[in-house]
Amino acid sequence: MIKVGIVGGTGYTGVELLRLLAQHPQVELRAITSRTDAGTPVSQMFASLRGYVDLHFAHPDEAHLDQCDLVFFATPNGIAMQQARALLDAGVRVIDLAADFRIQDIAEWEKWYGMRHACPELVADAVYGLPEVNREQIKQARLVANPGCYPTAVQLGFIPLLEAGLVDCGSLIADAKSGVSGAGRKAEIGFLFPEAADNFKAYGVAGHRHLPEISQGLAWAAQGEVGLTFVPHLTPMIRGIHATLYARLKGDADLQALYEQRYRNEPFVDVMPGGSHPETRSVRGANICRIAVHRPQQGNTVVVLAVIDNLVKGAAGQAVQNMNIMFGLPETTALTGLPLLP
Amino acid sequence: MIKVGIVGGTGYTGVELLRLLAQHPQVELRAITSRTDAGTPVSQMFASLRGYVDLHFAHPDEAHLDQCDLVFFATPNGIAMQQARALLDAGVRVIDLAADFRIQDIAEWEKWYGMRHACPELVADAVYGLPEVNREQIKQARLVANPGCYPTAVQLGFIPLLEAGLVDCGSLIADAKSGVSGAGRKAEIGFLFPEAADNFKAYGVAGHRHLPEISQGLAWAAQGEVGLTFVPHLTPMIRGIHATLYARLKGDADLQALYEQRYRNEPFVDVMPGGSHPETRSVRGANICRIAVHRPQQGNTVVVLAVIDNLVKGAAGQAVQNMNIMFGLPETTALTGLPLLP
Amino acid sequence: MIKVGIVGGTGYTGVELLRLLAQHPQVELRAITSRTDAGTPVSQMFASLRGYVDLHFAHPDEAHLDQCDLVFFATPNGIAMQQARALLDAGVRVIDLAADFRIQDIAEWEKWYGMRHACPELVADAVYGLPEVNREQIKQARLVANPGCYPTAVQLGFIPLLEAGLVDCGSLIADAKSGVSGAGRKAEIGFLFPEAADNFKAYGVAGHRHLPEISQGLAWAAQGEVGLTFVPHLTPMIRGIHATLYARLKGDADLQALYEQRYRNEPFVDVMPGGSHPETRSVRGANICRIAVHRPQQGNTVVVLAVIDNLVKGAAGQAVQNMNIMFGLPETTALTGLPLLP
Amino acid sequence: MIKVGIVGGTGYTGVELLRLLAQHPQVELRAITSRTDAGTPVSQMFASLRGYVDLHFAHPDEAHLDQCDLVFFATPNGIAMQQARALLDAGVRVIDLAADFRIQDIAEWEKWYGMRHACPELVADAVYGLPEVNREQIKQARLVANPGCYPTAVQLGFIPLLEAGLVDCGSLIADAKSGVSGAGRKAEIGFLFPEAADNFKAYGVAGHRHLPEISQGLAWAAQGEVGLTFVPHLTPMIRGIHATLYARLKGDADLQALYEQRYRNEPFVDVMPGGSHPETRSVRGANICRIAVHRPQQGNTVVVLAVIDNLVKGAAGQAVQNMNIMFGLPETTALTGLPLLP
Repeated sequence: MIKVGIVGGTGYTGVELLRLLAQHPQVELRAITSRTDAGTPVSQMFASLRGYVDLHFAHPDEAHLDQCDLVFFATPNGIAMQQARALLDAGVRVIDLAADFRIQDIAEWEKWYGMRHACPELVADAVYGLPEVNREQIKQARLVANPGCYPTAVQLGFIPLLEAGLVDCGSLIADAKSGVSGAGRKAEIGFLFPEAADNFKAYGVAGHRHLPEISQGLAWAAQGEVGLTFVPHLTPMIRGIHATLYARLKGDADLQALYEQRYRNEPFVDVMPGGSHPETRSVRGANICRIAVHRPQQGNTVVVLAVIDNLVKGAAGQAVQNMNIMFGLPETTALTGLPLLP
Repeated sequence: MIKVGIVGGTGYTGVELLRLLAQHPQVELRAITSRTDAGTPVSQMFASLRGYVDLHFAHPDEAHLDQCDLVFFATPNGIAMQQARALLDAGVRVIDLAADFRIQDIAEWEKWYGMRHACPELVADAVYGLPEVNREQIKQARLVANPGCYPTAVQLGFIPLLEAGLVDCGSLIADAKSGVSGAGRKAEIGFLFPEAADNFKAYGVAGHRHLPEISQGLAWAAQGEVGLTFVPHLTPMIRGIHATLYARLKGDADLQALYEQRYRNEPFVDVMPGGSHPETRSVRGANICRIAVHRPQQGNTVVVLAVIDNLVKGAAGQAVQNMNIMFGLPETTALTGLPLLP
Repeated sequence: MIKVGIVGGTGYTGVELLRLLAQHPQVELRAITSRTDAGTPVSQMFASLRGYVDLHFAHPDEAHLDQCDLVFFATPNGIAMQQARALLDAGVRVIDLAADFRIQDIAEWEKWYGMRHACPELVADAVYGLPEVNREQIKQARLVANPGCYPTAVQLGFIPLLEAGLVDCGSLIADAKSGVSGAGRKAEIGFLFPEAADNFKAYGVAGHRHLPEISQGLAWAAQGEVGLTFVPHLTPMIRGIHATLYARLKGDADLQALYEQRYRNEPFVDVMPGGSHPETRSVRGANICRIAVHRPQQGNTVVVLAVIDNLVKGAAGQAVQNMNIMFGLPETTALTGLPLLP
Repeated sequence: MIKVGIVGGTGYTGVELLRLLAQHPQVELRAITSRTDAGTPVSQMFASLRGYVDLHFAHPDEAHLDQCDLVFFATPNGIAMQQARALLDAGVRVIDLAADFRIQDIAEWEKWYGMRHACPELVADAVYGLPEVNREQIKQARLVANPGCYPTAVQLGFIPLLEAGLVDCGSLIADAKSGVSGAGRKAEIGFLFPEAADNFKAYGVAGHRHLPEISQGLAWAAQGEVGLTFVPHLTPMIRGIHATLYARLKGDADLQALYEQRYRNEPFVDVMPGGSHPETRSVRGANICRIAVHRPQQGNTVVVLAVIDNLVKGAAGQAVQNMNIMFGLPETTALTGLPLLP
């Protein structure tokens, strides 16, 4: 049994980790921490866990996380980087669901996240936890930077084109739409039901923190710089990301075959038949990315549609997938629950 | 392995049965029928099932349902009563998720459902599939009438009071609210998104088909006639029923203890702590009924709040629960998935 | 022109007042205050007002409210009672959209609102601003206590029965459902989109602040004490209240005629034909209460359905209606906008 | 008074026309037709119109439309082209809210709409009713082709760039998102609440009927061919279109000034300040298009955000605007209602 701790369990990625780990046959959930809610039964805050999770939120000082085999950070940005060193030194492996270790360029990270990095020396060791790209490194990783939700969808959608060198890398466009849970479980007026329901808007057009993360991953795939315009939008649904990706083809290719080939061994990427329009609800609650590739009117613009559940393949599910890989378990363990539709 | 067939699989209870049965370790799904969609892959209609369900919809004439051990009818009212006799005669056990066998009084059934009953002689043999009441009879049943969604929530909420004889049976009130999936997957204008979203309304105040079913069940519990006012409402959510129940106390009692005692061995009924307000999302996707009992201002009106997912404990999940009971399996098999929250 | 000021304009009732007053031909909007947002253009916070409202939020100290003819308080509870005296002394008339002056029994108010009343002597002078009951007093009023949203719907629904003495006043039940804007524009986790969407729950069953206000109004109508069970619920829509009311008839009566008669001269109460089920969207954005009265199965339980838009007839619209009455204008001025459907 | 008739009033554009025309001081609503609902009071189908619209739906044969000054067609595609000739010959002016007269290239129209055009000779006379482009022609028009919803948003967003010749016309991208009312009030499973809620998807990527209409309009603005990739999406809201537009700049320019200048005299186009993100709710129920223009990271990709209410500026409101222009009324008559927010 893997002894697991969770730091910061009162947010949406935290409760989603609990939902998935509660039924993981190889996981023993040892502690979940929360400064503000220490002492509260987890199932009192999240009634959905009644009967499945018996833990109380623990104060970080009393959680004995150093006795775990693995600790997940489901915290705001800037927390994991303060605590990871001590855990790693104690032999604990770490998966950070926040952004602290995602970007290799420290200066870039500090610019976008507006703080000094507390342990830049760990960043180089961290493995970017996108299994479809880095599976081998993840196996050995002691510190995994779990990808962001937008970056997961956008990278999985673009990578086959970029790896194959089929498109103009200088004019990529990612028009992405997210459900409101992507904003986290924070009390902010802009995410109140009466503000976010029956409404649609773009945000962060001038620059969103996921831009450098996506650009980094696309550059790895393209083996060179990429030019990306990334426009995120808020859509009135709870879960789900839909990325609509545009690229200019440099030549001809069987795009459907390319995508099917690239992901044929991937348990969690579903390349849909030509002409498909994946729906976010088709992955609701599941660790799946569904992709369809289009070439409208046989022009030279390729349109890729990619959907994930931002809390699962975009966060907690991918983190469990990474854990499974790190600990040599079948990669799909505890991740085979079907999407909830309708 | 239990060989299972499903008649009428293109509706919401059908796809929900598929979601649950696809992961049932003792079930071999043999056929799912649809007249209009025969030949279509199930996963083409419901992309959420891609990779999990390989069946095509089959025409009823070619589905060989008589070779199944169990057939679920996830059909409109009036279908199962036409086909159940032949299946039963072939040794197939039947669970009807529609209303054909729910009401013992044939004349009453015919009045509310507006058609002649095709096999009234089977009704007396049918077992009303509410396990919390009829578990022993379900074990032996060849034909189970799976309860309606409203009736499940309202009965589970009222039964402890009625069995204990604590309330005035002549003035029960059930104010119930349902998500829109309760109306089924039928093309009707009233259930279009622009009609049903951001809107709330009552319907069927003059009389709803679930009224006689609920009254019958409450009368069984009360061992006598009951007077019930039942007002259903449509609320803009996909899944979920919230029943708010009102009854007049005849005397004093420890209501919390009464409910906890009544359901202490029930795997799928959760009596919440005093003062709780169960949310429908706390059972989203799960086969659970959560109940809280209140006595506002210590007056003589008791208020019971009961929530279920109408497609799970109110339909497909309860049907699987009944199947488990009928075939001697652990009752919770394939029904332990956690609710999806948020 | 009536010179109008608004205290506390950054909430939902504030912006709704602005929407209505911006097109009121007899109103000159002089100031709208906000401590935290002083200096911000109103239309920057609420883009819907761009081109219609040119004001900036003003600090209360600089708003010169004492030069207005009328000041609306669209503030949290407990503010108006601190400032009303000075304004009244300066000859300014006041409409409080919060609860400070709604309850005549000061001790009762202090119990439910958890604070000492700052000017109990004004309460007796305040007129409860439900025009369908108090129109004559409102004409002369210097201080109007604008009713709460639930109280408006529940009182308008029950009053004809109580005034006519037709029902048992000791066992009234009001099962009410509100859209999320009823909770105000406050940053609280429970009202985030991912918490409130696709979810339904009751709250405050043990006791809600609107209970004493409703009971007071019903007692006036019944000319005697009433026993009321009031259960509010949160439903995933932005605007709208649906009150489902239950009462026990003491005798026979033509209920449809009773309601039509009671409200035949009311411009903002619509008694729908027998058998109707009013929808909240049929009053979305409009100052209308639609009511339908039912007697299911001709039993002795009467069921009344009443819908309002909580921000209009349940708050800002009713406040403008009161203003129109107070200043001798046609009561419907600026209140004839049609509901937005779909 | 303008005597007005509406053909096909049971859909969403029909009821929206009624909402707007009911308060138009210069309009006398003479008839609204519906074959299937002839005889039904309009306010019975749309309770929101109770007290405002007294008409019954009339059978087309009995509607005496030839005695109107103006007839709106709020019908499915293919109806207006059958009836327009007779009305025009009788001296009646016509505004078609469907697509029959929008595309000048008859062959192109027939390809996309899958039917033969019934009166191709009228198409050349029809004026495309986008007032921001064709105001002068609309004044004289006898037959106005009211633009589609997507085309309105996309054209208003792109036109300043194209007219100024600032962007590469060969690689325009329009990523558009529509609320579900855009699909009309038709009973189709795909638009049921449980299908469309909490879900996001693209559709028609291979080709959508609005593509040729948009391309035609953009070509007019660019005075030459354009290459456009248009991807529409369905988003879970009732009303609203958000168009996110991408174009490649050919040189430098003050984009903010360009847009402000282009639309400075337009009563219904609001160019928001630099850095803005218009929300669909900021135009809910109002005849407004709000636009913001961005140039992320000062690169050569310009991003334009444009929002409209698909039923107002995208349909009925624009039709009323066209009527006002055609009949010499102030263009804003009956179109000054404020957006409903929240």
